[in-house]
This record gives sequence, C-alpha cells and structure tokens, in this order.
Amino acid sequence: MFNDNHKIAGVAYPQGFKAAGVRAGIKKNGNLDVAVIYTEKEAAVAGVFTKNLVAAAPVLVSKKIVATGSAHAVVANAGCANACTGEQGLRDAEKMAQIAAQELNCKADDVIVASTGVIGPNLPMDKMEAGIKNAVQKLSREGSVNAGNAIITTDTYSKACATEVEIGGVEVRFGAIAKGSGMIRPDMATMLCFITTDADIDQKLLQTALSDATEVSFNCMSVDGDMSTNDTVVVLANGAAGNKKIVTKDDDYEKFFATLKNICIELAKRIAADGEGATKFLTINVMGAQTFADAKRVGMSVANSPLVKTAFFGQDPNPGRTICAVGYSGVQVAPEKISIQFGGLTVYKAGLVTKFDEEAMRKILAAHDIVVDIDLGLGDAQATIYTCDLSFQYVKINADYTT
Amino acid sequence: MFNDNHKIAGVAYPQGFKAAGVRAGIKKNGNLDVAVIYTEKEAAVAGVFTKNLVAAAPVLVSKKIVATGSAHAVVANAGCANACTGEQGLRDAEKMAQIAAQELNCKADDVIVASTGVIGPNLPMDKMEAGIKNAVQKLSREGSVNAGNAIITTDTYSKACATEVEIGGVEVRFGAIAKGSGMIRPDMATMLCFITTDADIDQKLLQTALSDATEVSFNCMSVDGDMSTNDTVVVLANGAAGNKKIVTKDDDYEKFFATLKNICIELAKRIAADGEGATKFLTINVMGAQTFADAKRVGMSVANSPLVKTAFFGQDPNPGRTICAVGYSGVQVAPEKISIQFGGLTVYKAGLVTKFDEEAMRKILAAHDIVVDIDLGLGDAQATIYTCDLSFQYVKINADYTT
Repeated sequence: MFNDNHKIAGVAYPQGFKAAGVRAGIKKNGNLDVAVIYTEKEAAVAGVFTKNLVAAAPVLVSKKIVATGSAHAVVANAGCANACTGEQGLRDAEKMAQIAAQELNCKADDVIVASTGVIGPNLPMDKMEAGIKNAVQKLSREGSVNAGNAIITTDTYSKACATEVEIGGVEVRFGAIAKGSGMIRPDMATMLCFITTDADIDQKLLQTALSDATEVSFNCMSVDGDMSTNDTVVVLANGAAGNKKIVTKDDDYEKFFATLKNICIELAKRIAADGEGATKFLTINVMGAQTFADAKRVGMSVANSPLVKTAFFGQDPNPGRTICAVGYSGVQVAPEKISIQFGGLTVYKAGLVTKFDEEAMRKILAAHDIVVDIDLGLGDAQATIYTCDLSFQYVKINADYTT
Repeated sequence: MFNDNHKIAGVAYPQGFKAAGVRAGIKKNGNLDVAVIYTEKEAAVAGVFTKNLVAAAPVLVSKKIVATGSAHAVVANAGCANACTGEQGLRDAEKMAQIAAQELNCKADDVIVASTGVIGPNLPMDKMEAGIKNAVQKLSREGSVNAGNAIITTDTYSKACATEVEIGGVEVRFGAIAKGSGMIRPDMATMLCFITTDADIDQKLLQTALSDATEVSFNCMSVDGDMSTNDTVVVLANGAAGNKKIVTKDDDYEKFFATLKNICIELAKRIAADGEGATKFLTINVMGAQTFADAKRVGMSVANSPLVKTAFFGQDPNPGRTICAVGYSGVQVAPEKISIQFGGLTVYKAGLVTKFDEEAMRKILAAHDIVVDIDLGLGDAQATIYTCDLSFQYVKINADYTT
C-alpha cells in the first residue's frame, strides 16, 4: 500500500499540492528546519490537537484557522516549540502565518502553523521570515522529503507515506509526513502530522473522519506516556481529484475513511517503533473488553508501565508485570477471566501465571516486533496499542541532553 | 524523633511486642526471609491494602483478619509473592496463618499474613512451615532488625523506626518496619509496612487514623507508578501502655494520629529515597490547589513523568517537562496562574519559562535532595509527593533480572 515511490512523493502526491523544506538556522545542528505545504486550490481543513492545558502558541492559532473550515497552506518549524512563550509567542505564531500568506498570496487565516522543539525560548523571527520566504520559492512536487526532514527533531528518520484509492471511479490520492519520537526527548514536543488528499469531501465529514482515525491510531500509541504541548494532526482536502463530493456517510465516505485510517495507523506504528532509544516494537491487542475505552485504558496501562517496558528491553519473560498493569489500569476486570499471550504463547490464564515453554519464549522475546494479546473475557470490544521498550539509550539521551 | 536505638528496637519497642526474622530458604540468595511479629496481649488491628484488582492471596486473607478487628501476630515472607496463584495460593496463605497460630497458641484468624517477591510461583510450604516454627522459637524484644531484613527484597536497606509520645500522662510507644523499592523490580511486589503500638485505642478509630495517615504518606509516594499486587500496611495496637482508651477524636487521638502520621511519612520518604537505582530524592510540593485530590494528582503526574525523572537524574534544568506534566495531569489548571520553583529558584511563572541563574541551578540540581514547589494559584489545598529519579541503574536492574 505504501511503496517507496509513494513515500518520496509524500504530501505532494495528491494533485495540486506542493511542498518544500529548507534550512533557516533554527535547529542548532543546522539541519532542515522550516517546512511549507501548499495547495493553490482551496482545501477543506480538519485538525486534532493536544489536550494538554499548557498548549503551545501555534496550537492556539491553528485551532482558530481549522475553525474557519478551509486553508491553503501549512508552515511548520522544528528546533523551537514556541511553547510557554505567552503573548509574544502568540504574536510570533500569527506572524508565521502572515509571512507565508504574503508570499503565497492568500489570507493569513488560510495558513496552518506548527512548531516543535525546545519549550520556553521565543522563535527567532528573523530566521523564520527568511526561511519561510526561501521555502515558498522552493515549493515543488518533489519537496515532500525535505519538508518531512524539516519537521523532525530526535526522530531517527522522517515518517512519510502516500497511497491512492478509487472513489466513484476516480483515483483519489493521499499523502502524509509525520514526526514523533521527540515526545520522550527532554524539552521536545511530541508529534506533528500533516496529511494531504485531493479528495472532494465536506469539511465536517473530513473532521469526523480525522477525529475517528486519530482515536484508533495516534491516540492508541505511546512511547513514554508524556502528552506534549504541541501535538498537531491536520488534513487538507483540496478536491482536485474531481470525485463526486462526499457529503454523507455513504460507501464513498467509508472508502475515504478506511484509507485515511490506514495512513494514520501506519504512521502511528512507525512513530512508536522509532521511539527514543527503542529496541523493540510492541503491539498490544486488548480484546474481550466491554467498551473500546476500557480496552484502550488497559492497553495504555500496560504500554506505559516501566516494568513492562524494561522487561521487553531485557527480553525477560515476566507475565506478572503485565497482569499487574492490567490490574491497576482502573478498568473493572476479573482476573480469573483474563488470558494473556506473548507472541501467541499463553503466559497467564484463569488467574494463574502459566508454565510456558521457556525456549520458545526466549525466541519470541528476541524478536524486534513482539505482539502481546490480552483477552479480558468480558465483552466484544477491542483496542490495539502501539509502543516500544524502555532502554539504556532512552535514559542516556534524556539525561545527557544539556551535557 | 527516630534515633538509632529506637530503630533497632523497631516493632518490639512498644511494650508487649516481640519479633523475629529467620532464614527459611525461600529467597534464592539465602538471606533472612520469614518474619513473625507477636503480642501476647490481644491487639486492635487496622490495615490498608493494594487497590490492584489482581490482589495476592495473602492480601485477600489478611483483609478478612483485619475485618475481625483484632489480632495477635503478623507472619510475613519475602522471595515469593504468592500472587496469581489461585485457589492453591489462598490455601497456602491460610496455612501460613494456621501454622503460626498453632505455634503461638492463638486462633488462625488472629494472624495477619503477608508475602512479597516473585509473582506466579507457589509458596514452598515445607520451607515456610519450618521457617515459621523457627521464627516463633526466636521471638524476642531484640528481633525487629532480623524481622525487618526478612521482609526486604531489592531494598538496599531495611526501613525501621520507633518513637514515643505522651498521651494522658502515659508514655505510648510506636515501632515500625517497612520494605519498599522492590516496587520497581521485575516480578517483585511493592511495599509492606508493619506498625506496632502499645496505645489503647478503639479499633475503628485505629483504622481511621491508619487510612488518613496512609493517604498523605504511602499514597503520596511513587518510584515508578506501578501499583503492586501485595501492598499491605498493618498496625497493631495492644493497649499495654495503659493510657485511657482513645474512643473519640479528642486531643489524645490527635496526638496519636500525629505520631502515626509522622512514622508513615518518615517511612514513605525512605522508601522513595531507596527506590531502585535512585540517585536523587525528590520532594514535590503542590500548593494553591482547589482540593487535596487535585494537588495529589498534579504531584503524581510530575513524579511519574519519565521526562521529569530522567531530567533530575541528568541534573538537567528543564522546567518545560515539569509544566508539561502539570498540564496533562487531568486537573483543570490555569497555566498563567502557575509558578514553579526548583530548590527555591523560580523556573516558571505567569505562563513563561523564566530566565534563571544557571550556575545557582546547577548547584541545586547537583544535590541529592531536591525540592520542587508547584503553586497552582487556584486555592488553599496542598499535597506533598515523595519520589526519586530514573537512572541507568533502574533500567539495568530491571532489564537484567533473568540474565
């Protein structure tokens, strides 16, 4: 579904979109740090943002822009989160949009802004202005790779993907770039994700689709459980594909939603797998719950347990930690009804830690990808959580940040 | 308040109490692993237990014994948690009480049982029986140190204290032993605390005092946020001091409660400071909250943040992580009203990360004990949380458990 050629096209794969990423000198290491995504044809816009009450200035500004329902561009930077920066921060975020709007001949409230990086400092607006102007000059159908690299912080690689789906006999394209693992980096903000599509879809349905897709992807992913000040996921739909506009939850909508959801899940998996210091990618399937919320809460309790995370780092078979985290999740579980499997091998059943084949378990825990299945035995609801282990490198990177 | 001589006396410092700790071969390393505490004079008993729905067999058994209101003894072991052991586990926990009762000439429902150690395996009852019989033979006024060492797991030292207070012209004594840091040890259960006093007090008031004292001590302490299957705090009050029985919340009760609370807080601090791999002891004061629950929730959110914990391990001044954890705590805070201080130095105020004296901050972060003050600026309620940092050693100990 996501071949390399598509990934390279990224957010410029859908018709009518261009992108660019440039060096503005905001990142200390001199890497690409300012990205612009643009569609000349006005796009319906939807967004989801951090629930952290200490939200960064660009989040507050972009929420207002999403509320207008349409947009032409996204301008984003890495290296400075513009968070905990007060009134000055709000003025700087608005200025980012104004500079881009002037260069792109659109209105400031047509430009989504996003920042990621150190919390506290103000944006260097002189560098930002030069960077935005430079990026707009470089906008192209080949610019997504640079745009993707311009928004990463401590990620070891830029997350990008693209795909297409036939809706009403018309090819509809999707593209996306995302950054993640900085979520567990000292002073770094968490995740940014920009999704483009040339689908023609009602803005309210677009928001519904993004919100529903986020709930089972980015909201079901955890590296260390810290929720950042800058989390932003935005989708732009410019209608350039020329499909019959999606205005109700019909088959066309279902196709659109399924594709958007798959993109979000794919990116969520990559963000979890690229978590700071990660040596393992853990998929935690919680089933047999009474509600999705219960399943998710149990899965998150397990995913965020330092005992569980260090156990998998150490390839240590200890179901006791997993059932313990299920028990304190806050969900009303019945221990005797729960069964837990690591890599398909049952380790807990009917209230008992089982005697499992230790050699087989060693093989399962030695793999990079490990699946944990937890059946609560109470209902039909399920949730899947994506996370990583907790390694020496995690502590090292975080402890050595200023030294 | 807690001099060494008192600590040595420990749970046998109050009149009428004896204790012992012996080697029964339950711990792999051959250390002391079975403890017995005894009072010939019947004692009022109160207890608080883990809220984990996956509660160990001894927790289920001891809850019933506490419900009877009185007890003569505590029998505890380390090395095996008797958790996730089903019906067999319940029978074994009851057998522990029966063996001790037979040796002590009391009823089985006069004996509190507790276990800590690996989750999953069954208790080796032959070793347990020999150990309990041996411990009862060794009961003495000098046995508290051995009893304290017999209940520790990965603790680097046994926590013990003792003190006295004058109540109604009579000297009333208190003693206690506790174990902790295993809470973040793979497959190890969390904390056990046994408190003795020769005070004469109504059982219901004793339970009220213990519950209230626990709420501001052991429930305000975190090493890694994992709640174990075996947490048990029990207090025995045998009335041997001969004080006028405390039957209402009068001045005598307040003196009793204040002393019990101070013991619990002292032990909670030591457990946090001795957290696995800890290099820093962190005291997080949250003030200006609308309720104690809010203050506690904010403090716990900060105390459990891997970003915050690794920051202090790395002596890295980054208020951004702390305010971020306050923001996602779930409490309705107002960022612009919050102020945060590290070691008395303001690092966040009025929505902004402040410019602080970096040299002064370096000195503050280099210390072993660090105080973080968080004023929410919303009300008069406050809470103090005790925790430790997150170090390489934490990951090493946990990851290398089976290797």
